Amino acid sequence: MNQRAFGESPVVIIDEGSVGLVETKYFTFAEEQDTFRLENGLTLGPVTVAYETYGELNENADNVILIEHALTASAHAAGRHTPEDKVPGWWDVMIGPGKAFDTEKYFVVCSNILGGCYGTTGPSSVNPATGKRYAFEFPMITIKDMVRVQKALLDSLGVRRIKAVAGGSMGGMQALEWSLAYPDMVDSVVLVASGAVSNPQSIAIHKVGIRAIMDDPDWKGGDYYGGNPPAKGLAIARMIGHITYLSHNWLWQKFGRNHPDPASMKLRLDSNFDIEDYLEYQGTKFVERFDANSYIYIMRAIDIYDAAEGYGSLAESCSRMKCKKALVTSFTSDWLFPPYQSREVVDAIRENKILCDYHEIDSPYGHDSFLLEYRTLTESIKEFLSSF
Amino acid sequence: MNQRAFGESPVVIIDEGSVGLVETKYFTFAEEQDTFRLENGLTLGPVTVAYETYGELNENADNVILIEHALTASAHAAGRHTPEDKVPGWWDVMIGPGKAFDTEKYFVVCSNILGGCYGTTGPSSVNPATGKRYAFEFPMITIKDMVRVQKALLDSLGVRRIKAVAGGSMGGMQALEWSLAYPDMVDSVVLVASGAVSNPQSIAIHKVGIRAIMDDPDWKGGDYYGGNPPAKGLAIARMIGHITYLSHNWLWQKFGRNHPDPASMKLRLDSNFDIEDYLEYQGTKFVERFDANSYIYIMRAIDIYDAAEGYGSLAESCSRMKCKKALVTSFTSDWLFPPYQSREVVDAIRENKILCDYHEIDSPYGHDSFLLEYRTLTESIKEFLSSF
Repeated sequence: MNQRAFGESPVVIIDEGSVGLVETKYFTFAEEQDTFRLENGLTLGPVTVAYETYGELNENADNVILIEHALTASAHAAGRHTPEDKVPGWWDVMIGPGKAFDTEKYFVVCSNILGGCYGTTGPSSVNPATGKRYAFEFPMITIKDMVRVQKALLDSLGVRRIKAVAGGSMGGMQALEWSLAYPDMVDSVVLVASGAVSNPQSIAIHKVGIRAIMDDPDWKGGDYYGGNPPAKGLAIARMIGHITYLSHNWLWQKFGRNHPDPASMKLRLDSNFDIEDYLEYQGTKFVERFDANSYIYIMRAIDIYDAAEGYGSLAESCSRMKCKKALVTSFTSDWLFPPYQSREVVDAIRENKILCDYHEIDSPYGHDSFLLEYRTLTESIKEFLSSF
Repeated sequence: MNQRAFGESPVVIIDEGSVGLVETKYFTFAEEQDTFRLENGLTLGPVTVAYETYGELNENADNVILIEHALTASAHAAGRHTPEDKVPGWWDVMIGPGKAFDTEKYFVVCSNILGGCYGTTGPSSVNPATGKRYAFEFPMITIKDMVRVQKALLDSLGVRRIKAVAGGSMGGMQALEWSLAYPDMVDSVVLVASGAVSNPQSIAIHKVGIRAIMDDPDWKGGDYYGGNPPAKGLAIARMIGHITYLSHNWLWQKFGRNHPDPASMKLRLDSNFDIEDYLEYQGTKFVERFDANSYIYIMRAIDIYDAAEGYGSLAESCSRMKCKKALVTSFTSDWLFPPYQSREVVDAIRENKILCDYHEIDSPYGHDSFLLEYRTLTESIKEFLSSF
């Protein structure tokens, strides 16, 4: 039996193959006298990374699967923190004994991204230099910075080689960047519903979300900690996000024009269609769990990422890759990272004579497919990982 | 020579065939002792309608083209109000001597919709009963109400029959409703980039816009007149709107990932991509010209419209139509009113043995195509109007 939990983000829950009880661990590292040098030249530090691991590192320290999360997730990718947890980690359906990322074979690592709000240093962390939250004093961060922080974490864990770096959405951008920045460590990449850049429509949508947060009087220049968070602005930003995660057709199937009290529609403005109630709910729930400043910084990191940066083309940039193989998956109804963006990555990888499997999956769920189409993903990832 | 004015909304400007200098006229009508009975049973009145006319009504009073505007336009569909006006009426390229709606043949009427803010009674109008602006005391209005107000206007002008009711986007909804509500008056409908309902994605997008306005502290429950308007919220709502007017591919072609100062992207959050500057500009300009409450009421009227309401199906509802002919046009890249929504209308009309021409135009411009693809539209509308 499995069920879809259409709560605030879709986490598929299945009974079998759990990694069981897990805990989030923390690693604080320092480089260059307690600071981490960011891509933009600024320094930050010390940096703490929240991470989880499942399975065991083998003797060669090369059976590692590095899982990269998307915009608003955490290091908690699989299992449960307490036996009472109703919802497991965000990609539990993919990680565990016998699953796509089989913890009987692999040492699976997932860490919260730099700039996040689930244990890794971000704008809501306390700046040791001032004793106050960074807030908007937090420096701009990039996907490259996130990856470099993860590299330091893996070094600390004694990891020598990575069997696969895998991620969906922004997680796919990080996985791709891993293969470019640390080619000697990465045997393969698994990119799902992702791309080498953020497209202009996506930048535009982020823009509106960022503006909604910053225009909320409770945002206070980012310095809202200790007071009310910019709940209204953050809810609006999240509502826009959710529209982009679901496909046009899926909205018809899931909500249609259903309304609990159609007679009231023409009398009251607050008489909601079901889709409106859904968005209101998503907005409200998100405010309870996510930091508005983190949301801004991370959206911006997505906007400015370009895997071809500094090179004449994406193919030239990918000439750095030394992967044995790559697996790229897109979904037909995904309009946030449409299939053409995955095909661009596939073409660039293949131009460099690296084997690249590509699956364009016919799915109604839109961008959320990377969390929901677990059966198809499990099949293709298992086959992929056993092929090299 | 013609040029596209990519200002706040795309108005195509061509030199030839202008109706010349025009003026907006006003008609105030009363029914049932100074009130207008709305679809929801509430009353409103007296109602004033702003309208413009181009060309001459013939003796039979049956050479009328009724033009229906979209969300944020006005009665000023063609010509210029003063010789200095740089930008003509919003559909000037389609209305004039020798144009698609040929003012040498037809008496063209366009009125500002009920609930609007360009002269027709709306939430920013003064309520004669209180001497204050209606604000959020304004009753909920519907597409049917808008159409009924227009019917009263045409009656006052002595119009007996309408050669064609034509409109794009929400204008198409009004045109369709005309043919259903007043079948004996309407010889044909011309529906462009429209549909019989608002799809759930469109409702969702409106939701976010409405919420952004109402969450702006300057909105003050709608009672902001005399103070600052909810400029930030309204700008956000408009930015979201603009994203839906342009297609994904057109954003690539028009803006791509262009940035005036790429080096600054990783250092400053306020370092905008071109698409972001465009949206900011659109948001700011819109606040100067549109009333936030009108925007809310009109978006809601679009959301709740359903041409099949009260009937078992759209085809059954369309059994009321007595048109000689219909012309429906959609655009491949339009994702606000995708072509399938036009095809649904075409099928329903044809099921009732009414001739219905359908053109699905391959255009990159998205929903804005209904304003930009004037050459194709001119050709098909001229042919259509001369065919019956």
